[in-house]
Amino acid sequence: MRARNERASKGEGTGLVTLVGGGPSDPALLTLAGQAALAEADVVLADRLGPVAALADLPEHVEVVDVSKIPYGRSTAQEEIHRLLIEHARAGRRVVRLKGGDSFVFGRGGEEVEACQAAGVATRVIPGVTSAVSAPELAGIPVTHRGVSQGFTVVSGHVPPGHPTSTVDWSALARSGVTVVVLMGMRNLSRIAEALVDGGLDPATPAAVVADAARPSQRVVRATVAAIAEQAQEAGVGAPAVTVVGAVAALGA
Amino acid sequence: MRARNERASKGEGTGLVTLVGGGPSDPALLTLAGQAALAEADVVLADRLGPVAALADLPEHVEVVDVSKIPYGRSTAQEEIHRLLIEHARAGRRVVRLKGGDSFVFGRGGEEVEACQAAGVATRVIPGVTSAVSAPELAGIPVTHRGVSQGFTVVSGHVPPGHPTSTVDWSALARSGVTVVVLMGMRNLSRIAEALVDGGLDPATPAAVVADAARPSQRVVRATVAAIAEQAQEAGVGAPAVTVVGAVAALGA
Repeated sequence: MRARNERASKGEGTGLVTLVGGGPSDPALLTLAGQAALAEADVVLADRLGPVAALADLPEHVEVVDVSKIPYGRSTAQEEIHRLLIEHARAGRRVVRLKGGDSFVFGRGGEEVEACQAAGVATRVIPGVTSAVSAPELAGIPVTHRGVSQGFTVVSGHVPPGHPTSTVDWSALARSGVTVVVLMGMRNLSRIAEALVDGGLDPATPAAVVADAARPSQRVVRATVAAIAEQAQEAGVGAPAVTVVGAVAALGA
Repeated sequence: MRARNERASKGEGTGLVTLVGGGPSDPALLTLAGQAALAEADVVLADRLGPVAALADLPEHVEVVDVSKIPYGRSTAQEEIHRLLIEHARAGRRVVRLKGGDSFVFGRGGEEVEACQAAGVATRVIPGVTSAVSAPELAGIPVTHRGVSQGFTVVSGHVPPGHPTSTVDWSALARSGVTVVVLMGMRNLSRIAEALVDGGLDPATPAAVVADAARPSQRVVRATVAAIAEQAQEAGVGAPAVTVVGAVAALGA
């Protein structure tokens, strides 16, 4: 992250918050619109998983805030992000919220738009390359494939199957006939695989874990769904990683 | 599409086929890597739904083929695309296969990679912004939202529910608890909505159709899942369109 230089305010109410989906860490997977928004930004609030290298080329005057490091007290980190977005925009600044992947795929982008709108701050959203599709893709795995899979489900593995706050029916997913892509699921991978098999998925169904997608350190572990959690652990593969379960996971090997 | 100029071959075996996900028609949603691949291309095989405007800036010598218009005889259009990719690459050309959205989301990109590899032709794949996520996003609808949806399913509506070649269990999808996003589903929308409701989805579940996403002609129709097909038809909204079914479809209105 770059050094910060506070700029003078430009007058209340003229600011704008632009959510930019930065894609999976490789700055070449940023969109042209995302790059243009960064080039016009006064302030950038960035995530650890975003295309951090894209920030290196910003002009000296642009303030870059690594929101994974912002201090906060009684409020949550997310509330503090909302507060910063609104404060900078109200000061008349062009604010870019740069995220990894796409802002609306587990990016809490929808909440940030709502918070800004509730505060009367204008927003726009620039879609990005989601890691749900691109991480498998960069490992040669198509989430859909003619004759193999007519769809795919993207689900958060942050909350394990059966947890009181889980709203996902893993048993139904197991029977849905589509590829299952799990994000943020490394900690709960064995329970997720078990829930899918308990739900009726063939334990021999191919699976793959793609870690560090789009980075030089990218690694792929392939196994059956029954064995994938153990194999990934044995290979020492951890977050950030995307898990694919379905016949397509055998492709591109 | 541009005029074509055949270039001299560069010698067998030195070519490369690059699949570029072009995003949903707005050329600003192309990635930097995609733009770079286009800038180095000798031949571009493009789709009608891709970012056609991005082709206008290519140098004069680049051959652009609109594959929706290629003539073919006994082979299918897809087989003819494979043949062209391989033929151009074997002639030593740098070939870009430019698609709308992402190449691996119903883009038949996996088949094109397989065909090239079987012919000994080198390939690379540059992920793109999928319309499955970005079309709802550009209408203000996040496919996931904290407290509302912990996942989403993307499914092709090209084959209707219950069709012998359908591998999707719509009834299981109805119970999965995640957002359902249907691509290529306008012709079968009433049957799809019916299958979801028959599978147990509340008929009052919000739904939205986003047509012509990322174009000046973008339109959004919102209704309950029970009424969405009729409302979309009454509004005169047709393909290309993305349908979202789930509580998130009420957001961003």
